[in-house]
Amino acid sequence: MKIGMIGLGKMGLNLAKNLNDHEIEVYGYDIDQTIKGKVEESGIQFISSVDELLHQLEGETKTVWMMLPAGEITETTFTRLLSKLNKGDRIIDGGNAHFEDSKRRGELCGKQGIHFFDVGTSGGIAGARNGACMMVGGNKEAFKEIEYIFRKINVDKGYLYTGPTGSGHYLKMIHNGVEYGMMQAIGEGFNLLHHSEYSYDLEKVATVWNHGSVIRSWLMELMGEAFEKGNIDEIEGIIQSSGEGKWTVEEALRLQVPTPVISQALMVRFMSLDQEKYGEKLVSALRQGFGGHTVIEKRQPIES
Amino acid sequence: MKIGMIGLGKMGLNLAKNLNDHEIEVYGYDIDQTIKGKVEESGIQFISSVDELLHQLEGETKTVWMMLPAGEITETTFTRLLSKLNKGDRIIDGGNAHFEDSKRRGELCGKQGIHFFDVGTSGGIAGARNGACMMVGGNKEAFKEIEYIFRKINVDKGYLYTGPTGSGHYLKMIHNGVEYGMMQAIGEGFNLLHHSEYSYDLEKVATVWNHGSVIRSWLMELMGEAFEKGNIDEIEGIIQSSGEGKWTVEEALRLQVPTPVISQALMVRFMSLDQEKYGEKLVSALRQGFGGHTVIEKRQPIES
Repeated sequence: MKIGMIGLGKMGLNLAKNLNDHEIEVYGYDIDQTIKGKVEESGIQFISSVDELLHQLEGETKTVWMMLPAGEITETTFTRLLSKLNKGDRIIDGGNAHFEDSKRRGELCGKQGIHFFDVGTSGGIAGARNGACMMVGGNKEAFKEIEYIFRKINVDKGYLYTGPTGSGHYLKMIHNGVEYGMMQAIGEGFNLLHHSEYSYDLEKVATVWNHGSVIRSWLMELMGEAFEKGNIDEIEGIIQSSGEGKWTVEEALRLQVPTPVISQALMVRFMSLDQEKYGEKLVSALRQGFGGHTVIEKRQPIES
Repeated sequence: MKIGMIGLGKMGLNLAKNLNDHEIEVYGYDIDQTIKGKVEESGIQFISSVDELLHQLEGETKTVWMMLPAGEITETTFTRLLSKLNKGDRIIDGGNAHFEDSKRRGELCGKQGIHFFDVGTSGGIAGARNGACMMVGGNKEAFKEIEYIFRKINVDKGYLYTGPTGSGHYLKMIHNGVEYGMMQAIGEGFNLLHHSEYSYDLEKVATVWNHGSVIRSWLMELMGEAFEKGNIDEIEGIIQSSGEGKWTVEEALRLQVPTPVISQALMVRFMSLDQEKYGEKLVSALRQGFGGHTVIEKRQPIES
């Protein structure tokens, strides 16, 4: 079995190594040609163009795995592959595409007899390297032909065939929504401890909470590792996101299903990004308006 | 070593068995005398009164472990013990008391030279039986004398000396607040899947999410077990709580530290308990008031 891997970032390269460990021949391509040396050092053949990559896969059913950021680069790559692949070939999208995009791509592939799989991938970089968790949408019969790959590269019980195209990325989207809520709950708890009257050693708290307690979890383990590193104070209190929490809340709105905690976790992220605090200025001004409460005047930058 | 265990409910009895497994002689007392047979079957000596229990502990430093519901029964039992114990004796409160109560009790004990330990216990019934997670507040030197007990009855790395009296129950309170948020995030995610256009097997989803994914956790394992039981439809959508989530939010208010997700998770519980929905009636009435929107009229019960 040969696989063409497009996108050799943190996830793609580690997944390529993981596949390689399991006797799957990986040909890798990345738009960034400067990583060639690094890729080849890890035993993955670096191919300098998509056409050449497809050429390497000639002679059997082609399987191309995209491990790219969702959005334009995935769309461009997908369109190109669609124009070059033939009936029976396979496109696996292991990135975090929106499930509606994956449904559309699945339909486009279907018209040409190409098999499209939308694969939600979790477990972080270490998972991609040593055993991940994957949620696979696509045609069931076509999936069975490549199921052995998922058995190899994921942890035991770490993959699920989820149903028709779109269902894999949908499930990953909701997974990430849950993740937002769990992470925010953990953040809030430790923040309370940080402000409490007791002098807890937060690293030790994370350790004890991860040994035998109800909230033991991989996130708690990661929290402990972060405290162990000891650089929390060097991190800005700004939480970025890559879209799936937002999509989860959009889906909750579409279905009119309440998700107060997941929505709140998303809003906390947006608030953390909001440097201008225009909304808070307005509320402060209103408070002055009706109650004569003082507003805190912005300090002018000191001239040097 | 002998321990007098007061309160042989689900947690207390299992903890007594756990202690018993580790060559600690346990004398058990419970207000409910009907459980005597069940207790004795599990190898724990059932003592029919607190006085008798204390009598059994004569001859060495007495150690009494309370495993009781927080509130009046803990207070009554504590007061009684305080009047009967002597300098050097120990009271361990393994229940979920409010940390302010534990601080007060610690001070009262201190005046008589009795050592008081507030022990937050996590890990559920299985944990109490086979290895729990405990957060122990109290005098450090006094703790060292009984530390070996905590080493025996908890999982490896599963106990922490947290600081002065109150700090053990405080930490357990915040632990439970985090738990509320994590549980609610999980509930919301599966609820979205339940309402989605895909037909996910939720038990299989819980399994795959617990194998290699970022959100793998004991709560996810329990979620999978709940789906496996297959009785979700038989459960009322009412979430009770035993106080610690509420105390966490009260503490957040006291410290003025934001906890949007934990607070929201608590509010969801309160909403689930609210059968009257008086607030929703009012909002519905207001909506009719300004916009002429129809309200949904309550159906009269049909006369039989």
